[in-house]
Amino acid sequence: MYELSVELGERSYPIYIGEGGLSNPELFSPHIRGQKVMIVTNDVVGPLYEHTLRETLKDYDVDSVVLPDGEEHKNWSTLNMIFDALLEEQHSRHTTIIALGGGVVGDMAGFAAASYQRGVDFIQVPTTLLSQVDSSVGGKTAINHPLGKNMIGAFYQPKAVVIDTLSLNTLATKEISAGLAEVIKYGLIRDADFFAWLEVNVTNIKNLQPAALSHAIRTSCACKARVVEADETEGGVRAILNLGHTFGHAIETHEGYGEWLHGEAVAAGTVMAAELSMRQGWISAASVERIKEIFRMCLLPIGGPDSMTPSDYARLMAVDKKVVEGSLRLVLLSELGCAFVCSDFDRAHLDAVLTGN
Amino acid sequence: MYELSVELGERSYPIYIGEGGLSNPELFSPHIRGQKVMIVTNDVVGPLYEHTLRETLKDYDVDSVVLPDGEEHKNWSTLNMIFDALLEEQHSRHTTIIALGGGVVGDMAGFAAASYQRGVDFIQVPTTLLSQVDSSVGGKTAINHPLGKNMIGAFYQPKAVVIDTLSLNTLATKEISAGLAEVIKYGLIRDADFFAWLEVNVTNIKNLQPAALSHAIRTSCACKARVVEADETEGGVRAILNLGHTFGHAIETHEGYGEWLHGEAVAAGTVMAAELSMRQGWISAASVERIKEIFRMCLLPIGGPDSMTPSDYARLMAVDKKVVEGSLRLVLLSELGCAFVCSDFDRAHLDAVLTGN
Repeated sequence: MYELSVELGERSYPIYIGEGGLSNPELFSPHIRGQKVMIVTNDVVGPLYEHTLRETLKDYDVDSVVLPDGEEHKNWSTLNMIFDALLEEQHSRHTTIIALGGGVVGDMAGFAAASYQRGVDFIQVPTTLLSQVDSSVGGKTAINHPLGKNMIGAFYQPKAVVIDTLSLNTLATKEISAGLAEVIKYGLIRDADFFAWLEVNVTNIKNLQPAALSHAIRTSCACKARVVEADETEGGVRAILNLGHTFGHAIETHEGYGEWLHGEAVAAGTVMAAELSMRQGWISAASVERIKEIFRMCLLPIGGPDSMTPSDYARLMAVDKKVVEGSLRLVLLSELGCAFVCSDFDRAHLDAVLTGN
Repeated sequence: MYELSVELGERSYPIYIGEGGLSNPELFSPHIRGQKVMIVTNDVVGPLYEHTLRETLKDYDVDSVVLPDGEEHKNWSTLNMIFDALLEEQHSRHTTIIALGGGVVGDMAGFAAASYQRGVDFIQVPTTLLSQVDSSVGGKTAINHPLGKNMIGAFYQPKAVVIDTLSLNTLATKEISAGLAEVIKYGLIRDADFFAWLEVNVTNIKNLQPAALSHAIRTSCACKARVVEADETEGGVRAILNLGHTFGHAIETHEGYGEWLHGEAVAAGTVMAAELSMRQGWISAASVERIKEIFRMCLLPIGGPDSMTPSDYARLMAVDKKVVEGSLRLVLLSELGCAFVCSDFDRAHLDAVLTGN
């Protein structure tokens, strides 16, 4: 079992990566302080893995709550199912919540942990590629609001992240592709060599070839850990992890949560960020083409939905969390392998990008 | 203007206490970093003081949201009115929320600040005695759940607390009494001299005699600040601030939020805690009588509602946040002026107390 650490002082925690983590009690027991555990899962992942996890945790008093699957359910009323279950089963401040599922389950279980009795422990057990390489690490938790994605939440770190790569075997191809959008992001923002490696290996990862998959997950988690360590609550550099996300969140909000997978929207948004960076003169047309090509290989979209107009983007991007005093800030590329947060771009270039997408 | 500090490292903040704070821009401007401010108030306090506060903040871009008054509205749907207003007016992470009102407004505005875009700044402007001496200081924020009071929330410190004692002039007598229950609590848990002073001065405070009122508020805030500094997230000693609250929360939940004022329920609960402490042999019958007498002088209840049975208490107290692994923990008195958290009490004594109340 490969182990990485996210170093955040008293909030530090391990990320375990490997095959079979779900079945290994030793990965869980150091991080559970009470006798009671609440598994939060959904109606797709639960039937596949809850039984295994319960077996692993057989020394504890385990309850579970099964949420409906999908981003469209990442809202208050679904979150409240977790609170109802915790209160009905009389879970105390010493309970431990375990998020078993993808990013939506992790975000909601994490926010429930942050706010139940003003904070209880939680462990992330991400079962999708996207959540394994991105959302389970770093402590961002949230639910959506009709007017904006992830607008209500907390920075709240888990006690551990258990990544069982075997859980990807039951994942739909479309979900693997969505996860790859975030994997590719790490290459683009911080690691040109990793991007080049991905150009060669992306098909192997899609096919779940173990060595390629493992390298991609480890590299992604390590990149995320280093950025989060540098800026836990996104006062600065952490924002680069949102490459493509401002455009992407606008797409998700416009289309209705759940219509586009998060990773699909991020892929389209990343192409827009790359095109804007090119129009600013920072990266070449060839670099933009490399980015589009790798997304094509993943069967990911390289443009937004036809139904969205530039004014739709403008309106929805105005409530982005990176907006400061009315000024839109975007994550752009100064070169392939280096991202930065920028408010000083040519608005006409942005309009051109939005018109073209 | 008297100034106290709550020392919590990078989360330290001042408490300003005096007449006219609401009209003093210099108390606010050091704690507002952006241009936008959202005042959160209710339909009772807003008409009285929002205009004054807007005048004080005339250099800023001020929006406001007016919540319905009352503990029965301290729930998700009212909280969501704050999120709606923030998003509709496009408030960014650099906004500052100002809670103008009593404990309910402070708890909700604080939790909204803790979770809007994963955390924005907020300032407490408490306008009731209870919120001035207790709930505005220390960073506890929460909403209620049908199965338990304050079950969903966060520890999230304000940037400043502005206590304008003039705002008490418009407060109902019943609300002054409710606040006095928490003032008396500080004497009981940590300061026998203050309790003795209160026995002499409680009528002056009720009549809003400025010197007595000011001393009571300063002493209460200082006591709260010292306890919070010692234990910000209630891992230990902070729990003594909950003297009477486990019983009191059970009463509030049973009767329906808003039927009993929080301070009224705390008074009844404090008598129960005192009676249990007496039955344990720790305090005298005379001490219990002194406690009942001071509550009587305040026109506060000294027993729970007739409709509640011992089993109602048992059921509702079982979900208290101080419960650990199924074991009920109560704040009891080892002497008048000294409280401690106790799970090692005689259950028969508790039953006797509940039967008698």
